[in-house]
Amino acid sequence: MTTPGSTPLYAAGHHQKPGGMPHHRYRAFPPVDLPDRTWPGNTITHAPRWLSTDLRDGNQALIDPMSPARKMAMFELLVRMGYKEIEVGFPSASETDFNFVRQLIEQDKIPDDVTISVLTQAREDLIERSVQSLIGIPRANIHLYNALAPLFRRVVFHAGKDEIRNIAVRGTEMVMKFSDSYLDKTVIGYEYSPEIFTGTELPFSVDVCEAVSDVWQPADGREIILNLPATVEMATPNVYADQIEWFSRQLTRREHTVVSLHPHNDRGTAVAATELAMMAGADRVEGCLFGHGERTGNVCLVTLGMNLFSQGVDPQIDFSDIDEIRRTVEYCTQLPVHPRHPYAGDLVYTAFSGSHQDAIKKGLEALDQVAAESGRPVGEMPWEAPYLPIDPKDVGRTYEAVIRVNSQSGKGGVAYILKADHKLDLPRRLQIEFSRAVQRHTDDEGGEMTPEAIWEAFKAEYLDRETPLELNSVHTSSAAGEKDALTVNVYVDGEIRTLDGAGNGPIAAFVDAVNGLAADEVAKGNAVFENRTDVRVLDYHEHALSSGGDALAAAYVECTVGDQIVWGVGVDANIVTASLKAVISAVNRA
Amino acid sequence: MTTPGSTPLYAAGHHQKPGGMPHHRYRAFPPVDLPDRTWPGNTITHAPRWLSTDLRDGNQALIDPMSPARKMAMFELLVRMGYKEIEVGFPSASETDFNFVRQLIEQDKIPDDVTISVLTQAREDLIERSVQSLIGIPRANIHLYNALAPLFRRVVFHAGKDEIRNIAVRGTEMVMKFSDSYLDKTVIGYEYSPEIFTGTELPFSVDVCEAVSDVWQPADGREIILNLPATVEMATPNVYADQIEWFSRQLTRREHTVVSLHPHNDRGTAVAATELAMMAGADRVEGCLFGHGERTGNVCLVTLGMNLFSQGVDPQIDFSDIDEIRRTVEYCTQLPVHPRHPYAGDLVYTAFSGSHQDAIKKGLEALDQVAAESGRPVGEMPWEAPYLPIDPKDVGRTYEAVIRVNSQSGKGGVAYILKADHKLDLPRRLQIEFSRAVQRHTDDEGGEMTPEAIWEAFKAEYLDRETPLELNSVHTSSAAGEKDALTVNVYVDGEIRTLDGAGNGPIAAFVDAVNGLAADEVAKGNAVFENRTDVRVLDYHEHALSSGGDALAAAYVECTVGDQIVWGVGVDANIVTASLKAVISAVNRA
Repeated sequence: MTTPGSTPLYAAGHHQKPGGMPHHRYRAFPPVDLPDRTWPGNTITHAPRWLSTDLRDGNQALIDPMSPARKMAMFELLVRMGYKEIEVGFPSASETDFNFVRQLIEQDKIPDDVTISVLTQAREDLIERSVQSLIGIPRANIHLYNALAPLFRRVVFHAGKDEIRNIAVRGTEMVMKFSDSYLDKTVIGYEYSPEIFTGTELPFSVDVCEAVSDVWQPADGREIILNLPATVEMATPNVYADQIEWFSRQLTRREHTVVSLHPHNDRGTAVAATELAMMAGADRVEGCLFGHGERTGNVCLVTLGMNLFSQGVDPQIDFSDIDEIRRTVEYCTQLPVHPRHPYAGDLVYTAFSGSHQDAIKKGLEALDQVAAESGRPVGEMPWEAPYLPIDPKDVGRTYEAVIRVNSQSGKGGVAYILKADHKLDLPRRLQIEFSRAVQRHTDDEGGEMTPEAIWEAFKAEYLDRETPLELNSVHTSSAAGEKDALTVNVYVDGEIRTLDGAGNGPIAAFVDAVNGLAADEVAKGNAVFENRTDVRVLDYHEHALSSGGDALAAAYVECTVGDQIVWGVGVDANIVTASLKAVISAVNRA
Repeated sequence: MTTPGSTPLYAAGHHQKPGGMPHHRYRAFPPVDLPDRTWPGNTITHAPRWLSTDLRDGNQALIDPMSPARKMAMFELLVRMGYKEIEVGFPSASETDFNFVRQLIEQDKIPDDVTISVLTQAREDLIERSVQSLIGIPRANIHLYNALAPLFRRVVFHAGKDEIRNIAVRGTEMVMKFSDSYLDKTVIGYEYSPEIFTGTELPFSVDVCEAVSDVWQPADGREIILNLPATVEMATPNVYADQIEWFSRQLTRREHTVVSLHPHNDRGTAVAATELAMMAGADRVEGCLFGHGERTGNVCLVTLGMNLFSQGVDPQIDFSDIDEIRRTVEYCTQLPVHPRHPYAGDLVYTAFSGSHQDAIKKGLEALDQVAAESGRPVGEMPWEAPYLPIDPKDVGRTYEAVIRVNSQSGKGGVAYILKADHKLDLPRRLQIEFSRAVQRHTDDEGGEMTPEAIWEAFKAEYLDRETPLELNSVHTSSAAGEKDALTVNVYVDGEIRTLDGAGNGPIAAFVDAVNGLAADEVAKGNAVFENRTDVRVLDYHEHALSSGGDALAAAYVECTVGDQIVWGVGVDANIVTASLKAVISAVNRA
């Protein structure tokens, strides 16, 4: 409205233009002409069919793609959660993917109620190779795609519409031909994706999809999946819903067609686009846990499922231990889940504001009272609490009230003080855990804590715990190709003991030694160790305390100890010793 | 549809229910009865009025709230980007916030075209204190809220509708009274928020807002801002749009009312809810950069602004150096921006798939050709490229094709090899940077690189650079309350030199010393240092190489050197020396 350098017009409701961003290089996405659209009046009443593409689109967009072990961990997680359609790779493009499909089949890893699919481009050799990857499987889906969008026709393929349609038709014929020759004992399903559906003329997408359906001949018991990718998210989410409703109306075999969504998140609205397109009649959704996938990622299956759950709709997926899901995905992808990620981030069940904490407290008390009056457990009561859209316990989490300490000084909270005064850079979940200790202290003593009191509380909670275990000395040895061996002397309630352990690195070897000790002690009837068995390290951080020339290191470990999840902290000049002290701190705190 | 333990019904299109999530505890959000809604047919043609609440809602939800220095850095960033309405705090609830408002006013930090606002609860003492924080300011907005939602009336306040309405009315009267007495030279604007608008009966929200407007008496030149918070996101985003359209239609003074949105992201659809509500007629949007704020955060102002930009609409905000914005926000909030965050994440302009890389390459070549034919620079041409919704250069980024190395082994890529074989845990942006070096190698030599060749390339690129600078020895001294002093001996193109520096820690002191050297050398006419001045550390990581009992540390620094951004890597037994070597690596690479 104003030109650069002109007088600010704010008083009249205008804005100054500061930087001169070149918005003139871009065009508005043309709207779909659909004045009689019905989706805005609909609601979602049941879960769609889900397909996880974590092992294909998700894996292909990782800096460090999954190893076979990480792939198997992801596949087993998806099965455990309840996904029934899993795209497991692109076997014609990657030997690793091919071998993974073979491994799934030959090791009989696919449950009877799970259908895997493989993606292929529409080229004869690639289709043949893809079909070959499936030999011996009872049932599978083959997913073929080719690019229809005008930009691709013009700059990538230099091809007209007829040629592009023919690629899809011939590809479908070849899928059927090779399936007949290689997979005579397999029930083969078929999925076709008109690529960059969002950037393609709608009538041309319908035209090609109809031609593909003419070949596949869907009928009762023989569906066709037409998957409509928002490969790049290009418009506000209502436009995708319009596209899906418009497309679906044109299909001649709608009753035998599964209309499927494959949204990406370039504009940050993939979840919304999926939900509105489900309202527009889509049957099936492809996505990834926590939204991995090319660039901004595919739509997040966790958010979509939990959104249904929070509206009383059965998501058909088990999210009851969301932290375990998060940890497994972080292990498989080597990428973090953001602290504000809906339903799963570290901070999403946390209240910082005093007025929020007060309202939540009253809401939870009211729930308790309703439950008591009805004689039923709180966990079965209809959920209603201020600022908490779901009961954190339904996903294995807890509500956390994070106390601000020393806020009047403007120096932030506990984390700031530990970092500024003691160089300790606490991992986020440890910060939240320690805030509970601080909360207990302020509840007991009232008022604010001084920095000194915070440090004393931290030392008492994490660093000065010497029972039942205290580290005395450590000897480690490692040889190429073998597990590390470790011998430690520890005080067990004051009595010196020598323990041996082995593992993939000194921490693993030490955990092995501690688990051996705990099992022995429990067998001897030592009650102190009853809740201290089965130690497992979930997360690990270590950093140098980089003040001046000293070389102390701080180690932080998050462990399961018995059935608890606890953090431990160790500080030592030796980085290995610091880690072992951290494990002991966690075990002692359990 | 099935009960736990029943036979899987997948073949019939049903899903097995694996975990028995208690969805029966939740209810569907009741839809708004608005069959003649108009928003689904609208498009967004201009930017809304933006309000940043980074310093209020954003700051209040940080584990480590901003120090005064971080607050000022955030305020200055917001002003620089072009935000004209900035909520700067909650002065009646926090002495720090009060002092920050005073600092802004007394140090004359607020440009003429920027209006700050302060939030207050509707209590007399708090309103008075809030007004007092503003004494001496030429113009400001006062933002009052109270909770209207039935859950709050019932469990938090035990109050009826009349009492709740009276709180809002009396609060508004007190804002006017105290403004008259304390702020007679100030132009005061007024914003009212019916809290948890999304969870309140629409007619009651209208009722209270009309009563508040009756007191404020909006007129020409005297607007009222009615801000409608999705304090908790409770439904699909179309419902928020319906609520906004329904509400707006009831207002008797719509022409003098600014309808404002304040969306949170509990369901991952805040951006969408905002966009649909803008289509429904909202005038103004409150949010935070990168979506900070309670729990899942407020709506992300960066995504919203860039979404407008990508549709050819002037966002009125300068996003041209999005990395600088990200770094400043990460510094202020001490929380990361996710690698897949739209427009800003590390991975969002990265293509991993070979077919994506091929299509992008052809698209960029086609753009070059169109530009050459038109005789205009590529940067002025209408943008159109496969898989890249915007030109990364428009926000100061570059497109990255990340090459997969050794993918056939299933052991992932470069990052995996460096970690598994050499214990180096590269920060994500360094991984991407190094992939360019690998790309050059594979372009030159063709085919795959072996793990040995990758390690040789990494050493040559980062670890073995000894010109123009090489570290010889280091002496540091630090005393409480003073800057660290550092003396180093370095070889400058083979000749030994002694440098002194001072700073907040050894790295800062060393950078100071190197900058002194570079300035001297440039003054002497040494061309080697011309592009090596003004070194500044942007990011820093250090970790132990935890194999066996050795204690080598690896340090990674991201620096600006001259006008470049480069990474450096150092490995040493001494953690300080490792850091300094990393800085030298970056300077030598520039």
